Amino acid sequence: MTQSKSINRRIVLASRPHGLPTAGNFRLEEVPVPEPKDGEVLLRSVYLSLDPYMRGRMSDAPSYAAPVEVDAVMGAGTVSRVVASRHSDYAVGDWVLAQGGWQDYAVSTGAGLTRLGDKPDHPSYALGILGMPGFTAYMGLLDIGQPKAGETLVVAACTGPVGATVGQIGKIKGCRVVGVAGGPEKCRYAVEELGFDACLDHKAADFAEQLAKACPNGIDIYYENVGGKVFDAVLPLLNTSARIPVCGLISFYNATEQPQGPDRLALLMRTVLTKRLKIQGFIIFDDYAPRYDEFARDMAAWIASGQIKYREDMVEGLENAPQAFIGLMQGKNFGKLVIRVGAD
Amino acid sequence: MTQSKSINRRIVLASRPHGLPTAGNFRLEEVPVPEPKDGEVLLRSVYLSLDPYMRGRMSDAPSYAAPVEVDAVMGAGTVSRVVASRHSDYAVGDWVLAQGGWQDYAVSTGAGLTRLGDKPDHPSYALGILGMPGFTAYMGLLDIGQPKAGETLVVAACTGPVGATVGQIGKIKGCRVVGVAGGPEKCRYAVEELGFDACLDHKAADFAEQLAKACPNGIDIYYENVGGKVFDAVLPLLNTSARIPVCGLISFYNATEQPQGPDRLALLMRTVLTKRLKIQGFIIFDDYAPRYDEFARDMAAWIASGQIKYREDMVEGLENAPQAFIGLMQGKNFGKLVIRVGAD
Repeated sequence: MTQSKSINRRIVLASRPHGLPTAGNFRLEEVPVPEPKDGEVLLRSVYLSLDPYMRGRMSDAPSYAAPVEVDAVMGAGTVSRVVASRHSDYAVGDWVLAQGGWQDYAVSTGAGLTRLGDKPDHPSYALGILGMPGFTAYMGLLDIGQPKAGETLVVAACTGPVGATVGQIGKIKGCRVVGVAGGPEKCRYAVEELGFDACLDHKAADFAEQLAKACPNGIDIYYENVGGKVFDAVLPLLNTSARIPVCGLISFYNATEQPQGPDRLALLMRTVLTKRLKIQGFIIFDDYAPRYDEFARDMAAWIASGQIKYREDMVEGLENAPQAFIGLMQGKNFGKLVIRVGAD
Repeated sequence: MTQSKSINRRIVLASRPHGLPTAGNFRLEEVPVPEPKDGEVLLRSVYLSLDPYMRGRMSDAPSYAAPVEVDAVMGAGTVSRVVASRHSDYAVGDWVLAQGGWQDYAVSTGAGLTRLGDKPDHPSYALGILGMPGFTAYMGLLDIGQPKAGETLVVAACTGPVGATVGQIGKIKGCRVVGVAGGPEKCRYAVEELGFDACLDHKAADFAEQLAKACPNGIDIYYENVGGKVFDAVLPLLNTSARIPVCGLISFYNATEQPQGPDRLALLMRTVLTKRLKIQGFIIFDDYAPRYDEFARDMAAWIASGQIKYREDMVEGLENAPQAFIGLMQGKNFGKLVIRVGAD
C-alpha cells in the first residue's frame, strides 16, 4: 500500500497485550490527513523505527515513560519529510527526525524535531546507528562499562543495532568480544562481518558451558540488553570489579508472572558484594543528552572508516508494523528493524 | 582472665559453622608466647575488633578473601603494643594497628603495621570510627552514594560503626536520614544522639509501611550493609537514579540455602533498568586505599567538632570473643564491638 495524500493510516493500540503481543492488540485506522495550524508543520513518515522499549509502553505497569493509552496511536521515532509548513523554520521537503508515531502523517510544532540536512545519504541511519540505539551502545559501554584493552566483553542480541555497535566499539577499544545471538546465521555474521572473537547461539542446550569456554579469563563487562538465561550464564563468570550497564531486558518484557524460585535476589546481591560489581541502569537521552555531539562525531568517523558496520532489517509498509514488532520480540529480525512507510 | 607473659591464649576455628556460628565452632588454646626473630617484633593485643565480614572467612565458599583454615587462629584487626623488638623501626611500648588475630600475642615483620602515635587518646578508635568501618562508611556514601542536600538516605544497622557513621555524614551533607535498627533503645539513640530524622525498628510487623511513611519523597540512597527484609522494603521506594553502595549483607551471612521463590532476580534487574539504579559493591581497602588520608583528615575534624559521635560496645576478655561474635551476628551489640584483650 502506498501513502495517500488525503488519508492518514495509523496504527493504534487496540488493547494491552498480556505476554507476547498479538495482531489483535493493534488496529489500523484511516482518518483524514490533519491540517497544520499556524506555527506547525505537517510531516510525512518515510521510515519508522521499531524498538524493544515499545513493549513497555503497551503496558500500564509503572515504568520510566508513560504508557500509550488504549485507542491512541503507537509512538515511535520516524524519519519524516515536511509536506506543509506554517512554521518559519521549516520548508516543504525538509528531512527531519521526529516522533511521528506508527502512522503516515503527523503534525508538529517543531519541538523535538532534529534536522537531517538537505540530502542525507542514509536517512534511516538516524533511527539506528546514528540515533538512539547507537547512542545507547556508545554511552553504556564507554561511560558505565569503561572498557580496557585486554578485557573480556560479553554482549547479547549482538546482531541488533545496540549489541552489534557495543561489540564493534569493544573491538576498537581492544577488548575480547564474545557475542550471543539466536541461530548460526547471526553468529556467523557477528564473527565474520563484525569481527567479534566468538559468538554463541543462546538456543544451544549447553550454552552456559560454551560461554564459560569462550571466556577463559572470565567476564569484565556484560552489556545487558536481554536478561534471562544469558544473564544467568554470565553471573558466575563475572570477574572482580566487573561492570554491567543495563539498557534493556527484552527477555523479561513479555513475562506475565514472576519466575519460580529459589529466590536469587540474595545471590545476586552477594555477588555484587563479593565481586564488587557495578550494575547500572540508564535511559539514554535522560542520562546522556549533553554528550550526543561527542557520540555523533565518533560514530560518523567510525562508519566512514569502515570500523563500524551497520545492518538494517527493512520491512515494507506501515500495515506490517504490528507483525514486525511481534517478530522483534521473538528475535526474528536480523539487524535494526525499520519500517519503510513511504517513498523518499 | 589477665594476659600472661609466658602463655599465648588464642582462639582457633575448630570447625566451619553451618548457619549461625556456635561456641563449638571455636576453641581456646594455650601455647607459649612466640619469640620474634631478627627483623621481627612481638606484639601484645590490647583491643581486638570483631566485624561481620569475619563470618565469610569462616566458610570455604568463594569470596573476596581466603577462608581461615580449620584449626588456624581467627584473623582480626587489633590495636597492639610492641613488647619485644628485633626490628630497627619499632621500640618496646609502641602502639600499632595490626592484624593480630584472636589471640594475646603475635609476631610481625612490620609489614601492614600502622603506628598510632605515642599516646593515642582513644586507641581503640583505630578499629572503628578512625579505621576500617569508618572508612567504609565514608567512601561508600560519598563516592558511590554521592549524597546531595535534600535527598533521602536510608541506612540499616544504623547504630553500628558503619551505619551510624553513614547516617551522620548524611546529615552533614544535608540529607534526610532514616535509620533502621533492632529495637526501641537503638532507635531512640539514633534520633536523639545521632540526630537522624527518623529511625525504624525492623522487628515491627508493619516495618515496610513505616518505611514508606518515613520516606514521603522516596529513597535516593540506600546504603546496603544488611540485605534481607530491609532491602525488600526499600526496593519499591527507590527513586529514579537512586544509588545503592553495597558494603555488607549481614542478614545473608548465616543463610544455609537459597530462599524460596518466586525468583526476584528479574524484578531487581527490571527495577535497575526502569529506575536507572546504580548498585555497586566495594571492598574498602581494595577499592579506596589511596584515599585513606582524605578520610582520616575529615573524620578527625568531625569527631573533634562533635559533628560525629561514636559508640563502642566493649567486651572484656579474649575468652568472650566467640560469644560476642555470635551476638554480633544476631544484632545484640550496641555500637562497635571491641574486645579488650589486655591492659593498656
